[in-house]
Amino acid sequence: ANSTMSALGTTVFEVMSALAREHKSVNLGQGFPDDKGPEEVRAAAAEYLLTGHNQYPPMMGIPELRQAVADHAKRFQGLDIDWQTEVLVTSGATEALGDCLFGLIEPGDEVVLIEPLYDSYLPMVRRAGGVPKLVRLEPPHWRLPREELAAAFGPKTKLILFNTPMNPCSKVFDEEELSFIAGLCLKHDVYAICDEVYEHIIFDDRRHISLMTLPGMRDRTVRIGSAGKSFSLTGWKVGYITAAPELMKPIAKTHQFMTFTTPPNLQWGAATGLRLNDGYFATLAADMQRKRDRLATALAEIGFDVLPAHGTYFVTTDFRPLGFNGTDEDFCRHITVKAGVTAVPVSAFYQSDEAPRYFARFCFCKDDSTLDSAIERLRAHF
Amino acid sequence: ANSTMSALGTTVFEVMSALAREHKSVNLGQGFPDDKGPEEVRAAAAEYLLTGHNQYPPMMGIPELRQAVADHAKRFQGLDIDWQTEVLVTSGATEALGDCLFGLIEPGDEVVLIEPLYDSYLPMVRRAGGVPKLVRLEPPHWRLPREELAAAFGPKTKLILFNTPMNPCSKVFDEEELSFIAGLCLKHDVYAICDEVYEHIIFDDRRHISLMTLPGMRDRTVRIGSAGKSFSLTGWKVGYITAAPELMKPIAKTHQFMTFTTPPNLQWGAATGLRLNDGYFATLAADMQRKRDRLATALAEIGFDVLPAHGTYFVTTDFRPLGFNGTDEDFCRHITVKAGVTAVPVSAFYQSDEAPRYFARFCFCKDDSTLDSAIERLRAHF
Ligand SMILES: CSCCC(=O)C(=O)O
Ligand SMILES: CSCCC(=O)C(=O)O
Repeated sequence: ANSTMSALGTTVFEVMSALAREHKSVNLGQGFPDDKGPEEVRAAAAEYLLTGHNQYPPMMGIPELRQAVADHAKRFQGLDIDWQTEVLVTSGATEALGDCLFGLIEPGDEVVLIEPLYDSYLPMVRRAGGVPKLVRLEPPHWRLPREELAAAFGPKTKLILFNTPMNPCSKVFDEEELSFIAGLCLKHDVYAICDEVYEHIIFDDRRHISLMTLPGMRDRTVRIGSAGKSFSLTGWKVGYITAAPELMKPIAKTHQFMTFTTPPNLQWGAATGLRLNDGYFATLAADMQRKRDRLATALAEIGFDVLPAHGTYFVTTDFRPLGFNGTDEDFCRHITVKAGVTAVPVSAFYQSDEAPRYFARFCFCKDDSTLDSAIERLRAHF
Repeated sequence: ANSTMSALGTTVFEVMSALAREHKSVNLGQGFPDDKGPEEVRAAAAEYLLTGHNQYPPMMGIPELRQAVADHAKRFQGLDIDWQTEVLVTSGATEALGDCLFGLIEPGDEVVLIEPLYDSYLPMVRRAGGVPKLVRLEPPHWRLPREELAAAFGPKTKLILFNTPMNPCSKVFDEEELSFIAGLCLKHDVYAICDEVYEHIIFDDRRHISLMTLPGMRDRTVRIGSAGKSFSLTGWKVGYITAAPELMKPIAKTHQFMTFTTPPNLQWGAATGLRLNDGYFATLAADMQRKRDRLATALAEIGFDVLPAHGTYFVTTDFRPLGFNGTDEDFCRHITVKAGVTAVPVSAFYQSDEAPRYFARFCFCKDDSTLDSAIERLRAHF
């Protein structure tokens, strides 16, 4: 078997969700919403199954969805995107990432990554033949270490891959940070793959800025978006890639052999979603913000040190004030088994042994009643 | 960009389908059925969108589908499969193939392939770091060249990948041929990946035999199946892998980072499909056989030399008796533009320059009226 893949464990989300099922705990581990997603989006996809074309759609995606992705980029980022050559539909953002990495990396290329990182990044970079260069953000501030980031770029760097809003630490990159990254990309003639799946799950006074909108970055940035995240339908596995035509070519060629296409009825539903009015997206963010506040406030009352969360489905907490002795993995197992609430250890998002070991990530994209029952259980336990 | 992927053209199916659209020709190129697929299968998937759980299903697939895949293997191949450890649901057979190749191949491993081959095989083997060893079948008999096949195996061989029933040449491997392949796998301690997506599209007195049922092959064979092909819903992109637990592990670890999961509503629909009674599968094969006969008979009358087709959606023809001077690519373009009928050149399924150049593949999984209109147009032209 392949040594990179065999060496992997099962993803932390799957492991913790299985443990949660086993112990009938309230699962605030894996990030998926309780919300059922917009009725009209699901109805459009259902109707298409009964009356539409359930055969292979075009490899790049159905025109209606590619147009909707381009229009959405115009509406929210002011970008002019040609839907025919610059948009590719994928079977989720995970596939999108694979298409980009396998399509762009030549074995031996260096890839800059920012820890904490989503769990598929590192194995997929390695399996594509890339040599990861990791730069570490540290709690509680998650500041971009500029010197280290600059030092990670070199003559062999092919691309940087990062996530904003960032899972698990809920950081939203600001314009200054993005400018710094853009400067490095331009200086070293490097691509950027931007995982922007949480582009609409953003709070307070923050706004999502795509690196693609920065000077000089239009043609060297690849954006990855997700209908699962934007419409609370994580099982749909509909993602989209936006990139300049020349950059898109090797990505699309990879996609055609990774999955070839994505179910047309779900593409149709996603197109319906992307056409929803601004109110839908504002409400999505406002609802999530309210849930963040509900959970974060209670966790602070219970005694956690709650870190700021500017976006995503997640809030990160330092559990040391509770007097727990052990690692974050111990803690997450402990509360699953003893308190009946599941969280995810933040160290799972780090490669190095020097990972911070006192932080647990809680997911708040749940029904209020679910959040309340988790809160009640934690309160009773601590 | 990655050199393997950049060097690729767009898949022949996509190219010919685009040309067909441009010239409003009857598209007998890309293999997708006109049949809408079983109403109850589509209705089950639609209902699930409205009332079911549209969030991440388990990474291996929903239990109902994994159980249905195991039961189906028992019903049609007499195999005892443990649904919990030996079945993985994928986003189509294309993803399944990628999971197997990226999960099993270590760079430098040799992989035995049989030409003509499906167009994703070679680039995916190469991108996974495998070294392809090609063995060629030749029209019109598509006989397995045993000596050459034996010579392709060696100490560096990791696996053989092949397709039965075989696209594009509609060959169904018989027990003797499979025994020969099994013997080589055992002798060289090699895995076999069997792409069996057309397992139910099989004609006359033939039957589909899975290599997994042969002595010694249970734990070294990986089977790939497809709901798209078995239920005439090629756009759904629901596939499944069956393999012994130890072999499944690296494949599943790859899957978790390739797409992670497959839409639960389509999994539910596919489970409904796999539970259909024997009559459904018999009728599917009988309908296709009737369509094969309708098209093959007419093509022979028009003057093509029509090769036997024992399975799949396709019939291969030698067009030299029509007096056409040119390659199969020229021919397929010519009939698209001049006759208004599209076929696919068989040389696209060969790597080597010595590919046979006088064969066109026609797809017959179409409405009778579509087949008749293609026949009429070809008759008028030749
Ligand atoms: C693919 S399961 C993981 C879901 C998720 O994005 C998360 O929990 O971080
Ligand atoms: C993935 S498009 C190709 C469909 C097909 O299997 C074929 O036409 O051979």
